[in-house]
Amino acid sequence: MTHPFFEGIAPVRYEGPDSDSPLAYRHYNPDEIVMGKRMEDHLRFAVAYWHSFAWEGGDPFGGQTFERPWYPQDQMKMAQVKADCAFDMFDILGQPYFCWHDADIRPEGADFAESHARFESIIDIFEQKMATRPVKLLWGTANMFGHRRWMAGASTNPDPDVFAYAAATVKMCMDATHRLGGENYVLWGGREGYETLLNTDLTAELDHMGRFLNMVVEYKHKIGFKGTILVEPKPQEPSKHQYDYDVATCYGFLQKYGLEQEVKLNIEQGHAILAGHSFEHELALAASLGVLGSIDMNRNDYQSGWDTDQFPNNVPEVALAYYHILKAGGFTTGGTNFDAKLRRQSLDAHDLIAGHVGAMDICARGLKAAAAMIEDGGLEDALAERYAGWSTPEAQALLDSDFDSIFARVHAGKIVPQPRSGRQEQLENYVNWFV
Amino acid sequence: MTHPFFEGIAPVRYEGPDSDSPLAYRHYNPDEIVMGKRMEDHLRFAVAYWHSFAWEGGDPFGGQTFERPWYPQDQMKMAQVKADCAFDMFDILGQPYFCWHDADIRPEGADFAESHARFESIIDIFEQKMATRPVKLLWGTANMFGHRRWMAGASTNPDPDVFAYAAATVKMCMDATHRLGGENYVLWGGREGYETLLNTDLTAELDHMGRFLNMVVEYKHKIGFKGTILVEPKPQEPSKHQYDYDVATCYGFLQKYGLEQEVKLNIEQGHAILAGHSFEHELALAASLGVLGSIDMNRNDYQSGWDTDQFPNNVPEVALAYYHILKAGGFTTGGTNFDAKLRRQSLDAHDLIAGHVGAMDICARGLKAAAAMIEDGGLEDALAERYAGWSTPEAQALLDSDFDSIFARVHAGKIVPQPRSGRQEQLENYVNWFV
Amino acid sequence: MTHPFFEGIAPVRYEGPDSDSPLAYRHYNPDEIVMGKRMEDHLRFAVAYWHSFAWEGGDPFGGQTFERPWYPQDQMKMAQVKADCAFDMFDILGQPYFCWHDADIRPEGADFAESHARFESIIDIFEQKMATRPVKLLWGTANMFGHRRWMAGASTNPDPDVFAYAAATVKMCMDATHRLGGENYVLWGGREGYETLLNTDLTAELDHMGRFLNMVVEYKHKIGFKGTILVEPKPQEPSKHQYDYDVATCYGFLQKYGLEQEVKLNIEQGHAILAGHSFEHELALAASLGVLGSIDMNRNDYQSGWDTDQFPNNVPEVALAYYHILKAGGFTTGGTNFDAKLRRQSLDAHDLIAGHVGAMDICARGLKAAAAMIEDGGLEDALAERYAGWSTPEAQALLDSDFDSIFARVHAGKIVPQPRSGRQEQLENYVNWFV
Amino acid sequence: MTHPFFEGIAPVRYEGPDSDSPLAYRHYNPDEIVMGKRMEDHLRFAVAYWHSFAWEGGDPFGGQTFERPWYPQDQMKMAQVKADCAFDMFDILGQPYFCWHDADIRPEGADFAESHARFESIIDIFEQKMATRPVKLLWGTANMFGHRRWMAGASTNPDPDVFAYAAATVKMCMDATHRLGGENYVLWGGREGYETLLNTDLTAELDHMGRFLNMVVEYKHKIGFKGTILVEPKPQEPSKHQYDYDVATCYGFLQKYGLEQEVKLNIEQGHAILAGHSFEHELALAASLGVLGSIDMNRNDYQSGWDTDQFPNNVPEVALAYYHILKAGGFTTGGTNFDAKLRRQSLDAHDLIAGHVGAMDICARGLKAAAAMIEDGGLEDALAERYAGWSTPEAQALLDSDFDSIFARVHAGKIVPQPRSGRQEQLENYVNWFV
Ligand SMILES: [Co+2]
Ligand SMILES: [Co+2]
Ligand SMILES: [Co+2]
Ligand SMILES: [Co+2]
Ligand SMILES: [Co+2]
Ligand SMILES: [Co+2]
Ligand SMILES: [Co+2]
Ligand SMILES: [Co+2]
Repeated sequence: MTHPFFEGIAPVRYEGPDSDSPLAYRHYNPDEIVMGKRMEDHLRFAVAYWHSFAWEGGDPFGGQTFERPWYPQDQMKMAQVKADCAFDMFDILGQPYFCWHDADIRPEGADFAESHARFESIIDIFEQKMATRPVKLLWGTANMFGHRRWMAGASTNPDPDVFAYAAATVKMCMDATHRLGGENYVLWGGREGYETLLNTDLTAELDHMGRFLNMVVEYKHKIGFKGTILVEPKPQEPSKHQYDYDVATCYGFLQKYGLEQEVKLNIEQGHAILAGHSFEHELALAASLGVLGSIDMNRNDYQSGWDTDQFPNNVPEVALAYYHILKAGGFTTGGTNFDAKLRRQSLDAHDLIAGHVGAMDICARGLKAAAAMIEDGGLEDALAERYAGWSTPEAQALLDSDFDSIFARVHAGKIVPQPRSGRQEQLENYVNWFV
Repeated sequence: MTHPFFEGIAPVRYEGPDSDSPLAYRHYNPDEIVMGKRMEDHLRFAVAYWHSFAWEGGDPFGGQTFERPWYPQDQMKMAQVKADCAFDMFDILGQPYFCWHDADIRPEGADFAESHARFESIIDIFEQKMATRPVKLLWGTANMFGHRRWMAGASTNPDPDVFAYAAATVKMCMDATHRLGGENYVLWGGREGYETLLNTDLTAELDHMGRFLNMVVEYKHKIGFKGTILVEPKPQEPSKHQYDYDVATCYGFLQKYGLEQEVKLNIEQGHAILAGHSFEHELALAASLGVLGSIDMNRNDYQSGWDTDQFPNNVPEVALAYYHILKAGGFTTGGTNFDAKLRRQSLDAHDLIAGHVGAMDICARGLKAAAAMIEDGGLEDALAERYAGWSTPEAQALLDSDFDSIFARVHAGKIVPQPRSGRQEQLENYVNWFV
Repeated sequence: MTHPFFEGIAPVRYEGPDSDSPLAYRHYNPDEIVMGKRMEDHLRFAVAYWHSFAWEGGDPFGGQTFERPWYPQDQMKMAQVKADCAFDMFDILGQPYFCWHDADIRPEGADFAESHARFESIIDIFEQKMATRPVKLLWGTANMFGHRRWMAGASTNPDPDVFAYAAATVKMCMDATHRLGGENYVLWGGREGYETLLNTDLTAELDHMGRFLNMVVEYKHKIGFKGTILVEPKPQEPSKHQYDYDVATCYGFLQKYGLEQEVKLNIEQGHAILAGHSFEHELALAASLGVLGSIDMNRNDYQSGWDTDQFPNNVPEVALAYYHILKAGGFTTGGTNFDAKLRRQSLDAHDLIAGHVGAMDICARGLKAAAAMIEDGGLEDALAERYAGWSTPEAQALLDSDFDSIFARVHAGKIVPQPRSGRQEQLENYVNWFV
Repeated sequence: MTHPFFEGIAPVRYEGPDSDSPLAYRHYNPDEIVMGKRMEDHLRFAVAYWHSFAWEGGDPFGGQTFERPWYPQDQMKMAQVKADCAFDMFDILGQPYFCWHDADIRPEGADFAESHARFESIIDIFEQKMATRPVKLLWGTANMFGHRRWMAGASTNPDPDVFAYAAATVKMCMDATHRLGGENYVLWGGREGYETLLNTDLTAELDHMGRFLNMVVEYKHKIGFKGTILVEPKPQEPSKHQYDYDVATCYGFLQKYGLEQEVKLNIEQGHAILAGHSFEHELALAASLGVLGSIDMNRNDYQSGWDTDQFPNNVPEVALAYYHILKAGGFTTGGTNFDAKLRRQSLDAHDLIAGHVGAMDICARGLKAAAAMIEDGGLEDALAERYAGWSTPEAQALLDSDFDSIFARVHAGKIVPQPRSGRQEQLENYVNWFV
């Protein structure tokens, strides 16, 4: 350990469900084989630098509650301490990936050049630390929502100077992601949206966002980055309306700007809920549309109307999420990131570890339940039976037909539909046999 | 008047804001010229047969409250009484359009052929009544959600027989719409969605829905129907999830199935709210995407989580809606339909007239305020000023550029964005000068 | 079995978690001892006549989907068939209790006297059936929301005649509950609220409701009914606002009308969610205020804004509910009712059994997890430690003190609070060790 | 003017609806007589120091956007600049009242004594400034939610030291409120609630909160403060659950702790919406229960799930609010506070004035519409007619009666309720004749 912050906390090990340690893995056993693959390789966990190291415990009605050795964060020497503590935590947890925003890892400089230099020097440190450890970069991203320059959007800003600043920032972050061997590059457009339509030119802003994302793809190919470009949907907050509202909205946008083969989605449970969907809905839809990329496995509180970004803690919910991921073939470049923050009253280093350990165990349980359902095949069998009528040649002929000829047959009384039970309760019971 | 139901209620006339009649138009003056066009031709009001004549006052916890001379509705002779009363009301209100579902106007028959025959005989009656009156058909549609055969979807049903039955039903309704000179044909997919993903094949269902809508378009062209095909988005209710969730979702779907040039949207305020949007958002987005067709101007209660389908009563909200409609050039084949139902305690014929009169006045006030804002130009001027930077050749060059060259300029300190006020409060005040 | 409806479905037995029967209890083992008491005596399951036998599968956009041998329900002979099938189902499930509304069990008569006579004749049948079976009545209640006479409220109706009709109805239902040995009497005020404040005299309506509830209590004592009077909170739907909004609102109402010692609450998970609360919040608050009576263990869909009344299927949620019930001492006269309806596509007798079997298993799992947490004591220990400061004499002196003397000590620097971690994540992990 | 911040902005004057100035009052005319009283004396506007001067434009995803001459706010000399600019704004707007939290007006000191001394020195400055101006203090309050010491509550904190610190803080703020002639003292319990029930002792916390509020009342009487003690309800945010959830919850709490005669409520539109209510609901209920004190007239966005605290801009909504206030007799010690913040993109001094000017005009329009409805009497007449049945001696006898005797009359067919229309649409139209 390079810093005393986590002093007294040993690396977390798998000890099985009967462990009496508060900080053991009871279910996450990286080497355990699930459906022919190591559990670690299925889940591909990542820790988020942002919430775990940069966020200080503030909320709209209160300031910092945490006290960390790397505060105040506006000093470069503290950024080094932060990096030390972050990699200490990676050593403790043993998760295979981490993620960052540029703003998480270095203090803003006086101008772009200084911000850039600071960023690069931290990336150097990361490179060194990664050289001696198994931990890899799941994705990098640019924070284009925190600083006041982004208040009216990044690529969608009414001011072209901000568009340019965003382009420079993303290039910088893509370069670093590429250098560190990152497997994806993410864009979350927290300010790409509006506060009021009264001052917003929707058409212009969407066109600029479409052009910007094309520039990202062009740059990816230029530099030979082999990872996946991911967009993260969210309906609102901080914006009143965010353009990347949900999976369906993003898919329409990608099609309009010719990007549906180039860009995939990073789907967060909390954002699904804010958009009025279940997490499994967003995952299943993205899989169906061919744009399922990666996930942020942090939940929202169902009784709060904002993004609470809590660690997952409900196995039945998580099992359905992995069920759809496994059905879609599992992750390729994507993984399970925790874009989760401690509650602001969880002050201690212990809490930071406990949040991750609990989350990883929940995911392990969910994955195993999902795999068992896949292997049992009960849900797929039920689907096959329910849609069996569509497998006939007659059904396919129907689709190639036209209204007049169908009308004739229906009118002649040759087609009289008979409702059949949808069996929802029995299928819900079935799922509960596995979780 | 052909029936005593509305006895004692005279045709509603424009009497101006100082009228002391409870049932006069205070603001809706059909012949008044607004932005060079008669108010009636801007607003293109339609009365919905469904909520006004077929709905009996039930809700999930209670049955019929209304008592109408055309009940019980399962008898053909009552369908004739209903038609008489409906056209009496059109005569009283003087609105230019009406709309129907097949199920609104005739009782279900024992089989499709009987349902069809009953339907045609009512369409005959409509044809006769319309021959002697100015009232026209804004749109027809098929109710493919009420009968138990549709419980698992129409075009998305797991059973191909239901797909066929839906095709026959829509053909019948399109034919009638065409015969009556209808200006649009609407599809609302209340059961095209799911109750649980556990029993749902998303990919198959969406493909079937895409094929069905293509068949609608093919049939439109086959019969020479010149009206617009409209899809009505709604996020949920009765379904847990409806595929036509909102404008953005529908647009993605239309693109995927090659229909974005053929199909437009019928946008309802209440459905916008259920989807987490403002009505003006849905309108502005549809206009931006080129799919703004027609509107259902009925609001939801902001404190209720279901579709309350109330008559509009808030001028500032309605003014913003018409502002976006006017900005988009106004209605072509579309219009302002009231897909609104009386509250179930509003038992009297008087209430039915009062609901419509109040709604039409609210829309007239909204339209005039919107036109005044357009003519004043204050909002457009503010937009032009805010986005002025994008009008320069440099800005356009930026869009044609690439990350490396932009980075170089930003890094050299040549681009340093300066935030400017978004002026939201001043613009909100501006709107209030007109409503 | 008295009727072929459930033909082929054997009585459900406990077969343990490894059963391969779709309709076995995997976890609900009535005789298993949990915390010194039989599981059946903890859970006290009840089946609701309403949703399981009277509801026909309709929703706001569609009519009946179910086909039952006891339809149409407006005939007395069918009410007898319904009773036969209901008790057949009680025999199959073996749950110890059932519940009814008057309107569930008999068709409305032409006038009150006929409705009353019909009701009594069904109660006679129930009495006979119960004489030979272990099944008991958890509670009776009056449906004062379905018929059009109740559209503007029962005890809160603007028309005193409706108040009187409500009084007569409740007397009838209380008498029958008493006769059948019911252990509680429930009031749910689905129409006690308003659609619009514009036509509502809040003060008068609340006073009338307060007087009515006092009359219920007076009548209970007059007839010597020893059961508990329960009010069921719900925030809205069908009303825009229901007076019995949530636990806190009901408690304020009970205090105002002097009833907090006489009346307890029947708390439903779905209604908790509609009111913006978690189920455990409502239970914990009711326990804290001394008004926890009984529960309706049916959930809502978190993505739907109305009361979906689904069977419970999430063990972690249910475990927290029973944790608060056990902490409060468990049920006395109350129990676990399923005020749950099948999804309207679940057409078969099998579905009706499956819904209950799954729900009872989920509750059994939740109860066992809750009991294990109680017995382990980890949460209570954490609470004790967190609030330990309040156990000192100094802390109690503080509460008896005044602002001036406290100010003096704080101002002198003698009191400097030191924040301590709330440990939320660790406690959430703890719960997951048990579910 | 004492500071150049508002340079170029003249005092705002009433210029009537046809003014072409962006910063004139078009409707707020302080001396205009409405229902026999000056408009200023009806509305009793207050500016909130908090949002207008202390909030820096941050949100959960971004930091400061505003640049003010009184930043950084952690210096006492800047607190003086802030006071100068605040009173400059009061001079410009001419509103009769202002409000503060302790934390708004002075930087936190190293300990309580220093914080206290700083606070007093700003109160001295206020006293001097108020001596030469008409502006008065509507209320003072203590910010017991921002600093990390309050993270787990103030009076409900698990640590009695925090309770003591809260007591000292409130005493300090009550003393200053009393010294400045404040007309009310407010408590908003932003942290009096919980993040998770798992670490919360509801009973102890509510008892401590009840005791604390009694200490406030005791201290009020001790020092002879004649103003009103107000509690501000809010359901959640920042807490997952706030104990002062809504009006009904607060009323139950006040009754339980014997305070319903001593404490009234400060009701905010935004908080009403977050709790699932309309603003007029909360006002009407508070009036009915006798606890209507004062209002925060700032709205939430209906499509956002958090407290957006925007300036009011919808006349029909505001009119209904004042209708209930006027029906209850109007304000006594209370007033119309704007607990409203600029959108974070509204950077300019002009925006700060525009937000208030627009809000005051909206309120003036709402007040005049409400007064016109009161004077016309149409709504009261409709109520009287609807409830006329309750005015008879028979109806009062019914309330004094019992179930057996009522049953006898109903059973004998002597009472057969006849539903009458609730006339909601006509009443909604009526309101629109006035707004
Ligand atoms: Co999030
Ligand atoms: Co995320
Ligand atoms: Co609707
Ligand atoms: Co509609
Ligand atoms: Co319910
Ligand atoms: Co219930
Ligand atoms: Co607020
Ligand atoms: Co407030």
